[in-house]
Amino acid sequence: MERLSLNQITTRRWSLPEAVAGCAQAGVGWIGLWRDKVAEVGVETAARTVRDHGLRVSSLCRGGFFTGRGPDGPTDDGIADTRAALDEAVALGTDVLVLVVGGVADRDLAGSRRRVADALDQLVPAALDRGVRLALEPLHPVQCAERSVLSTLRQALDLAGPYPPEAVGVVVDEFHVWWDPSIENSIAAAAGRIAGFQVCDELVPLPDPLLGRGLPGQGFVDHRHLRSCVEAAGYDGPIEVEIFNADLWARPGAEVLEEVIASYRTHVAASEPGPVHRSG
Amino acid sequence: MERLSLNQITTRRWSLPEAVAGCAQAGVGWIGLWRDKVAEVGVETAARTVRDHGLRVSSLCRGGFFTGRGPDGPTDDGIADTRAALDEAVALGTDVLVLVVGGVADRDLAGSRRRVADALDQLVPAALDRGVRLALEPLHPVQCAERSVLSTLRQALDLAGPYPPEAVGVVVDEFHVWWDPSIENSIAAAAGRIAGFQVCDELVPLPDPLLGRGLPGQGFVDHRHLRSCVEAAGYDGPIEVEIFNADLWARPGAEVLEEVIASYRTHVAASEPGPVHRSG
Repeated sequence: MERLSLNQITTRRWSLPEAVAGCAQAGVGWIGLWRDKVAEVGVETAARTVRDHGLRVSSLCRGGFFTGRGPDGPTDDGIADTRAALDEAVALGTDVLVLVVGGVADRDLAGSRRRVADALDQLVPAALDRGVRLALEPLHPVQCAERSVLSTLRQALDLAGPYPPEAVGVVVDEFHVWWDPSIENSIAAAAGRIAGFQVCDELVPLPDPLLGRGLPGQGFVDHRHLRSCVEAAGYDGPIEVEIFNADLWARPGAEVLEEVIASYRTHVAASEPGPVHRSG
Repeated sequence: MERLSLNQITTRRWSLPEAVAGCAQAGVGWIGLWRDKVAEVGVETAARTVRDHGLRVSSLCRGGFFTGRGPDGPTDDGIADTRAALDEAVALGTDVLVLVVGGVADRDLAGSRRRVADALDQLVPAALDRGVRLALEPLHPVQCAERSVLSTLRQALDLAGPYPPEAVGVVVDEFHVWWDPSIENSIAAAAGRIAGFQVCDELVPLPDPLLGRGLPGQGFVDHRHLRSCVEAAGYDGPIEVEIFNADLWARPGAEVLEEVIASYRTHVAASEPGPVHRSG
């Protein structure tokens, strides 16, 4: 339990103060924050609220969108926005800024990928200066066109390679990488760069490319296997439960958090497999 | 135009005789057949119909489902079914049998992949005996759980590696591989094993993980780039247009085939990019 972190997208109905209080009450010591929720109360209030409840921030989500293309079409300058996010991360007391790099701009996949590499190069000095890691998160290939031309952990490592590990890390999110036939090798190669580990499941059949995620145990992801891989690669930090799911989002945060804790205990933290939760 | 093949799933409303006659009338010399459509008229009738219209069969779809798990749940013995499909391929005059290997059985991804390798090993002698290639088709990772634990071209090449190229080949389907950051390298490494090249586009936003495909030009796939990659790897065979799309399937076959030909000419065959077709 001491490694469990609630990524606050999972309890989307909760405001930041509600999520922080909910975690404190449930004995969850870590929280992964989202910038839109932080912005609702302001960075200073958010930071104070977290501190006052004795919580720690596992990551801030998210910077990026360097290609200029997001799910709603063209995006603003991702570099300027990511610089701002680095400052927010410092204020919130986390050294991990999750990056979603952006989708295919101008129908040019190769060019969009080059923009990501260029942006990273420009941001590394700021990351080192602030002591915050730029944490590249490969997203599921089904989100390539709209959200992320970064699709595999191997590709993230190739991007990170030229920079020191304290400047550029990677996030391993089970939903995005569980299918990858070389994920074990890639995680091993990521030793020293793993800035975060996020767990959830993929619902089968998949109801939606973005929202088709479930609690650990609801799909086919082997959570213990992937946890053992990231641990063998030296990662011993917080484990975020991050679930995009419209049904969960419609329900009261406290109820959702209770299920998050139960599924984490059974399917992620425990050493033996527990009973399978079927999706509703 | 001489390389264009209509994969008959694209004109799903058409029976096999209708699709064959439609191709002949439109000047399309190749057709990719599906076994359910073949079964409706019987293999011998199907073969005679194709011959009588002067068409050639680019591939037969499909064998596989070796893991025991398909989109509708558990599947029958994929090995026996694939042996039968090899015989059908011979009767239909094609040397390419497309394989969809099956999804995750028993919540065991690694074990499911081993079943695929074992099945391939059992089928190679029959393939060599019949002169038909087992054509491994990696499917998009979004279809891993339900349809295919074979997700990348690199993985297909690793599976094919132990066997002669005339026994085990690979199919490059744009929808499934366009996002792959190492697709260029993998296609180059597939030289001598490429048994088929299938084109279509991925609709943006993706309406459905299975049916979210469009005509070439409707999405972000760079068809000329991928065509040049498979050609540089030595592939000069037929190019199938294969589109899973409920709207297309609802429309008359002749109308659909006309659009297939136009989009192929503009976005796949021509040397200069044409105007973009936006999805409706």
